[in-house]
Amino acid sequence: MGNDSVKIGWIGIGRMGFEMAARLAKSGTDVTVWNRTRTKAEPLAQYGAKIADHLTDLASCDIVFCVVSTWDDVREVVAGPAGLLSGGGKVPRVVVECSSISLEGSAELRGLLARRGIELLAAPVSGNAKVIKAGRLSFVCSGPKTAFDAALPYLGKIAPAVTYVGEGELARIVKICHNVFLGVVTQSLAEITVLAQKAGVPRHAFLDFMNRSVMGSTFSRYKTPAFVNLDFRVTFTPKLLRKDMDLGLDAARRYDVPMPLASITRDVVQTLIGRGMDDEDFAKLLVLQAEASGLALEAENVPVDDGLG
Amino acid sequence: MGNDSVKIGWIGIGRMGFEMAARLAKSGTDVTVWNRTRTKAEPLAQYGAKIADHLTDLASCDIVFCVVSTWDDVREVVAGPAGLLSGGGKVPRVVVECSSISLEGSAELRGLLARRGIELLAAPVSGNAKVIKAGRLSFVCSGPKTAFDAALPYLGKIAPAVTYVGEGELARIVKICHNVFLGVVTQSLAEITVLAQKAGVPRHAFLDFMNRSVMGSTFSRYKTPAFVNLDFRVTFTPKLLRKDMDLGLDAARRYDVPMPLASITRDVVQTLIGRGMDDEDFAKLLVLQAEASGLALEAENVPVDDGLG
Amino acid sequence: MGNDSVKIGWIGIGRMGFEMAARLAKSGTDVTVWNRTRTKAEPLAQYGAKIADHLTDLASCDIVFCVVSTWDDVREVVAGPAGLLSGGGKVPRVVVECSSISLEGSAELRGLLARRGIELLAAPVSGNAKVIKAGRLSFVCSGPKTAFDAALPYLGKIAPAVTYVGEGELARIVKICHNVFLGVVTQSLAEITVLAQKAGVPRHAFLDFMNRSVMGSTFSRYKTPAFVNLDFRVTFTPKLLRKDMDLGLDAARRYDVPMPLASITRDVVQTLIGRGMDDEDFAKLLVLQAEASGLALEAENVPVDDGLG
Amino acid sequence: MGNDSVKIGWIGIGRMGFEMAARLAKSGTDVTVWNRTRTKAEPLAQYGAKIADHLTDLASCDIVFCVVSTWDDVREVVAGPAGLLSGGGKVPRVVVECSSISLEGSAELRGLLARRGIELLAAPVSGNAKVIKAGRLSFVCSGPKTAFDAALPYLGKIAPAVTYVGEGELARIVKICHNVFLGVVTQSLAEITVLAQKAGVPRHAFLDFMNRSVMGSTFSRYKTPAFVNLDFRVTFTPKLLRKDMDLGLDAARRYDVPMPLASITRDVVQTLIGRGMDDEDFAKLLVLQAEASGLALEAENVPVDDGLG
Repeated sequence: MGNDSVKIGWIGIGRMGFEMAARLAKSGTDVTVWNRTRTKAEPLAQYGAKIADHLTDLASCDIVFCVVSTWDDVREVVAGPAGLLSGGGKVPRVVVECSSISLEGSAELRGLLARRGIELLAAPVSGNAKVIKAGRLSFVCSGPKTAFDAALPYLGKIAPAVTYVGEGELARIVKICHNVFLGVVTQSLAEITVLAQKAGVPRHAFLDFMNRSVMGSTFSRYKTPAFVNLDFRVTFTPKLLRKDMDLGLDAARRYDVPMPLASITRDVVQTLIGRGMDDEDFAKLLVLQAEASGLALEAENVPVDDGLG
Repeated sequence: MGNDSVKIGWIGIGRMGFEMAARLAKSGTDVTVWNRTRTKAEPLAQYGAKIADHLTDLASCDIVFCVVSTWDDVREVVAGPAGLLSGGGKVPRVVVECSSISLEGSAELRGLLARRGIELLAAPVSGNAKVIKAGRLSFVCSGPKTAFDAALPYLGKIAPAVTYVGEGELARIVKICHNVFLGVVTQSLAEITVLAQKAGVPRHAFLDFMNRSVMGSTFSRYKTPAFVNLDFRVTFTPKLLRKDMDLGLDAARRYDVPMPLASITRDVVQTLIGRGMDDEDFAKLLVLQAEASGLALEAENVPVDDGLG
Repeated sequence: MGNDSVKIGWIGIGRMGFEMAARLAKSGTDVTVWNRTRTKAEPLAQYGAKIADHLTDLASCDIVFCVVSTWDDVREVVAGPAGLLSGGGKVPRVVVECSSISLEGSAELRGLLARRGIELLAAPVSGNAKVIKAGRLSFVCSGPKTAFDAALPYLGKIAPAVTYVGEGELARIVKICHNVFLGVVTQSLAEITVLAQKAGVPRHAFLDFMNRSVMGSTFSRYKTPAFVNLDFRVTFTPKLLRKDMDLGLDAARRYDVPMPLASITRDVVQTLIGRGMDDEDFAKLLVLQAEASGLALEAENVPVDDGLG
Repeated sequence: MGNDSVKIGWIGIGRMGFEMAARLAKSGTDVTVWNRTRTKAEPLAQYGAKIADHLTDLASCDIVFCVVSTWDDVREVVAGPAGLLSGGGKVPRVVVECSSISLEGSAELRGLLARRGIELLAAPVSGNAKVIKAGRLSFVCSGPKTAFDAALPYLGKIAPAVTYVGEGELARIVKICHNVFLGVVTQSLAEITVLAQKAGVPRHAFLDFMNRSVMGSTFSRYKTPAFVNLDFRVTFTPKLLRKDMDLGLDAARRYDVPMPLASITRDVVQTLIGRGMDDEDFAKLLVLQAEASGLALEAENVPVDDGLG
């Protein structure tokens, strides 16, 4: 399969999907995009992408990326009555599935594709739309090594970091571990930020140090505006975080792994939801922590960098 | 105070102190170094540093950095019978204290210096000797803003990141918060790394993804060799981590801040010590976690980058 | 239904079932007993019980108690090919189910019995064989109030304490809550017993006070021999406790209830299992706690009362 | 020392002290009582107690009980300018100290008394005023065995349960362990009571079962009115519980014992205080738990027994 002639299909132009497809198109790759709402895909034409009217139009592509929301959506676009495989003719060699679906969904999809001779590369990501735009996304992939090798050049055009972790649905469990860590890290940051503030350190000064210290991460930096200026516009809801914490704890049960920090964080996220604070971003863990500490938070109204340029 | 004529004194050439002083000397700064064991300081002469025989030789410097081990050492080198202030004549304008001393020690030092008209800048750091060498150290500073402004040009020659967080000993509490976070992050990494491994993902592959994800940090990268290849040579002992967790929990009591993740992590570190696993680096939290999960760890013997070049 | 003429059937003569049926028979109740291994039931004849050869012999009873092990056993003895309902003729009015089965199993049994016009009383218990013998058992019941009223006189002959908590499978969730509490209480007792011992208080003296204090319970008293003399013969395995903790945490998820103490205790029990200490009673939580505290436990070899006479 | 001629002194007639002294006086013991506010002691005269005007009047007693509030009060009544020892003549053989004072205070008192040849029996209690009245108090004692033997007949007239745990201040650490357990048990009861209620079980029915189960205790029974009918009149404040949890955690640090359940409970109690819910009894942990679970509690207004008659 020479790179020059490889045709890529793309399903799903949500906030993440758009930015990913845009990077791919800008790189000069031959990419054909389908989205339920066609108009949302059209701006990609300026970068050279072709816009498809039907999912079956992508069946002749070599590799098809799928970036939709839920497992139901994935099944619909792949195997539904008007889905990718509904045409009956040629099928892609590889499907790269980047949505946040469960291990069970991923395994079902793998079986379903295998019956048509298609390899599945499970390829969830770390990052949000802004991270993609900043060129800082990372992929974690699992499935046949051949599928990974075929997809790698295109993954690399979308994200600078691509890790292959093994066969089957292993990438899903890695993504779940990643999100469990994200929950724990956020709660710990909430604990120490409130402690520092009560001791007299402004949040922006505290987080400036943390972000520039050896402990700082892309994540800690892009959450800083939320922690400093109480901007809680949703990037990830408390309920979605709870779902991922529960998936992590379920996996921990299956593999006999005690995870005390994950368990406690899960209960704190549940408390956030129980207290009715689940209308905004999960970064409101800071507010819950402040209340538990007898502290009324106020926005510091200091311009802070999210580190994403 | 014109930069050209500013004279810097340096007390303490341990693993960290040497690298810090080396960076300062290489920058062309006029720096005079004293160390208990003179021979350890002598290699700095090649970078232009002068080597002092007596602490009193530094009394005529404008700014004196102090990087020793404990509060007892600090008191000895500053106010002991042969200490910095024992000569009775000219004294520095500012002392920059970078050791890991307590809030109480820091406050006592401040009072002691104030009586001689000297300003104290508390300036603990985030990083180890290798981080300094890689040019990635960060300072967090507190004390008089005038002292900070005077020291800033020299701090900046040692480390790319310098944050001023306010008056008094606030930098100490920030450093404690930093170390509490370090403990929580390490335990959470241990939990998810063991889960991923039991699910079938090699540790090096898992951590490669985490390190390159939005959650990755300089810290997670430089702890990767320990987690992958079970290299537990000491960088920070379990007992020192426990001490800092306890300082954090003490501060949390003082300021009425519940810190469940810090509390649980503290108990896990105590368990590591209670089980007799405190002879090596605190990264052995991974081993404790593996045992609790019925997993016998083996070194993967895969070359991994610590991210420090 | 006059008490005098009421006929009771009894299925299951395990360690618990035997003691329960014995109390009922001794009270002069007309009770017919079936057990897979007939010989284990025969000693009950001395108390006036009749021994049945076939489960169908119990179909003409008014109320049938079922005390077997698992949901599979329950289904077999009630609805299996040679089960209670296999005869096709008269059926009991009420089945009282005392085994530790899940909410789902209980609901399935209820439906299965309802189709034959039989009411189900879910009636799990608190206590072990020795507790029954000491006349200290307690029942928690749910199902139709009519079924409860019919069974109450006979429940009261087995146990001094009978609580009705409502319709359906509510008694199951109460039993799960009870066992979650049992896990938390045991872990907390392990923590404080080890602390007291390390401070210099013998375990038997410490527990003597606790047992006689306002915090003492029948449970804390009958676990005292295990804690003092390290007698860890199984009464309840770590894996069974983990199962009940997980059922509790699952219910907590369903009802949006954070349970930090249950979560942490669950992870400690998992650690006990992961460390391979699940061969004996769950009271080995004391050993795990001692190890975590750097303490080598020894039996005190002091005669202690288990409070059960 | 023949029982018939033994004279007992009593210092402190607060809520607890009054009930304790009343039991002693009613038993026919020769007891002389002093209280800062004399009128509060006078009702004891009806039971045969003598009322003293001055603390020095008790110096000629053989054994003096001390039941005041704080260590400052203890020091004042024993060694203050008008205290028990201020007369200079005869002194008691034994002081029995029942207040909730720290290990350090207890040790200081021991030294202070030893210098006058007086033995100290540390004798904190489990129970409140109503428990004493119901004849259900328990003592835990430490100090010289001779002092214990001398005091035992009188301790036994006050409380049915008396445990000797060893030399020195060991009884203090046992009392702290007891109170740590009380905190953990209350939080666990709050967790499962809210879970049971959300599943459909009224609190009074749930606690009726728990109280009568093997897990039930005098404590769980006398807290039931608070949990069922939301009667949160203070018996023990959140801040006092936090203090005792902290004393327990401090002891755990000293003796290298990790106590995860105690740590988490401590943080929950801190949250109760941080949320401003520390105006009433610590049983408001139930309210905090309900809020975290999205449940608005209402009093069930069901008459429930507190088990104390």
